[in-house]
Amino acid sequence: MSYTSKDIKNIVAEILENKKDKGGVKSLYFVGCGGSLGALYPAKTFMEKECSNIKSALINSNEFVHSTPKDFGENSIICLSCHKGNTPETIAAAKLGKEKGAAVIILTWLEESEIVEFGDYIIQYSFDASPDHLKGDIDYAGEKTMCALLVAVETLQQTAGYENYDKFYEGLGMITGIIRNARKHVQARAEQFAETYKDDTVIYTMGSGAGYGAAYMESICIFMEMQWLDSSSIHTGEYFHGPFEITDANRPFMIQISEGSTRELDERALKFLHTYAKRIEVLDAKELGLSTIDASVVDYFNHSLFNNVYPIYNHELAEKKEHPLSTRRYMWKVEY
Amino acid sequence: MSYTSKDIKNIVAEILENKKDKGGVKSLYFVGCGGSLGALYPAKTFMEKECSNIKSALINSNEFVHSTPKDFGENSIICLSCHKGNTPETIAAAKLGKEKGAAVIILTWLEESEIVEFGDYIIQYSFDASPDHLKGDIDYAGEKTMCALLVAVETLQQTAGYENYDKFYEGLGMITGIIRNARKHVQARAEQFAETYKDDTVIYTMGSGAGYGAAYMESICIFMEMQWLDSSSIHTGEYFHGPFEITDANRPFMIQISEGSTRELDERALKFLHTYAKRIEVLDAKELGLSTIDASVVDYFNHSLFNNVYPIYNHELAEKKEHPLSTRRYMWKVEY
Repeated sequence: MSYTSKDIKNIVAEILENKKDKGGVKSLYFVGCGGSLGALYPAKTFMEKECSNIKSALINSNEFVHSTPKDFGENSIICLSCHKGNTPETIAAAKLGKEKGAAVIILTWLEESEIVEFGDYIIQYSFDASPDHLKGDIDYAGEKTMCALLVAVETLQQTAGYENYDKFYEGLGMITGIIRNARKHVQARAEQFAETYKDDTVIYTMGSGAGYGAAYMESICIFMEMQWLDSSSIHTGEYFHGPFEITDANRPFMIQISEGSTRELDERALKFLHTYAKRIEVLDAKELGLSTIDASVVDYFNHSLFNNVYPIYNHELAEKKEHPLSTRRYMWKVEY
Repeated sequence: MSYTSKDIKNIVAEILENKKDKGGVKSLYFVGCGGSLGALYPAKTFMEKECSNIKSALINSNEFVHSTPKDFGENSIICLSCHKGNTPETIAAAKLGKEKGAAVIILTWLEESEIVEFGDYIIQYSFDASPDHLKGDIDYAGEKTMCALLVAVETLQQTAGYENYDKFYEGLGMITGIIRNARKHVQARAEQFAETYKDDTVIYTMGSGAGYGAAYMESICIFMEMQWLDSSSIHTGEYFHGPFEITDANRPFMIQISEGSTRELDERALKFLHTYAKRIEVLDAKELGLSTIDASVVDYFNHSLFNNVYPIYNHELAEKKEHPLSTRRYMWKVEY
């Protein structure tokens, strides 16, 4: 059984129908590890802000298995993200979902893998598998982040209703074009970025709102995992309550200026950086074309934009550092 | 109007009574900035794991004000933490609560401050105001973290019921003694820690479960804010999905081994560290006496233990670095 993102509306409808005589759907858990957890962040933010009738949470797979919410069971949906379908902790979470009678939705890239037998619904997402994700010819509306968001959007729409439902799908129809333009737009500055920061040992990322997950992913999956740099993702609303004390003329910050409701937080942090820091790389969603998406839903598209602009920077940085993005010392190599 | 932690049961009862003819309490938001946000983390985890009937979320104050959950209003409780009552973003969140008709609970240290006029209930928490929090003669059960947890525990108990309610209060009665012993227990190793790491420029913290907030606070409030070190708090369940690639013989890790349901995650990360890292400081809740609290509730006491053992280390580190914990370059000094 294999699905595409177009089927998500039907998947949610089927789950709601199946759960009707069992008391309905009362909780929706988003579960994954690392980049596959970060990719679910916009869906978590969507539920937090838009939905009042269904409990939701974003939880690391291993924490979910060891410290399972007590209401997790036949009134739950668990939406898991597992790129190659072989992450043991996420397989365990899917298996737990099956055992407990939850509806198990698995977002994954490959058609066949270890995890699929534990899913009631397998959503194969689109993914740019070209070296360093540079080709950019995929349908970005079908990526895992958007699939998870659609699970959230459809769950809300088909239960309590979502007032901006049509606007959301309009935005979804625009995101691929926006991302493709943005990736071209940053090419020259990405080369400059790589030249400037190639000898640094620390780079911070910053972000807020539904886009924060992209800053988290860039920090842990790229800077730490693939470039062995010290890093942390700083929430721009948290910055002034501790982290900003490390700001100086030398430390580099890569900051996401989001479009939508939390833009003011990002702009405030940027203003401070412009005063006290000197080495700042700005990704501005407005400049990158995101403002053409309706203001009522634009928050939820920041992640997808930033997360797909980063690869242009990452490729250049890896080239200049002569440290390929595929190099690992532990992952898939040693026991852990 | 001023309350102590003993009144939390009555505060929640009064709110539930007042909200009864308005449709009851449907959401409970925990809101704050920096250390005051991190301190609310165990309450968030408690709601996520134990409670199915009331929506809950943990949100930075400025994000909450700019991107307010749409259901926030007269069926909500907002529980804010604001140490000196003068954090503008948290004052704005409290004000928003008043305007929207939510029940506003403010956890604060001082009796009089700017924020108190926007609170329906002011809970003055206990706080060790001695230099570097070294005196240790306070009632740790009355700290802000425990007050927030009690708001969560009482809200669940007085609505759907909480099966481990009595065990929780038993634990609360034990935590002060456990912390006092633990603080003495780590004195010698804290001195050694300071001597060993006094010239480092990066220190990571690690943790999981309801105790993760303590790792976050140590990273952003102490290492970054008060010692100007590069730092990040790594979730032990996330470690193997990116961050662990920065592990080597030189990078220092301060890891919390929690007691309770996520201990296995922490032990797995520690095992890896023992194999590939050389500079590791372990805070083990079991060794520090937390296991005497009942297993059904012990998860929620990790934060309080770790957060109150850290000051012993922090004081020694500041002494050895000759960088007092009170030194700031921006906070309270420049415009931001």
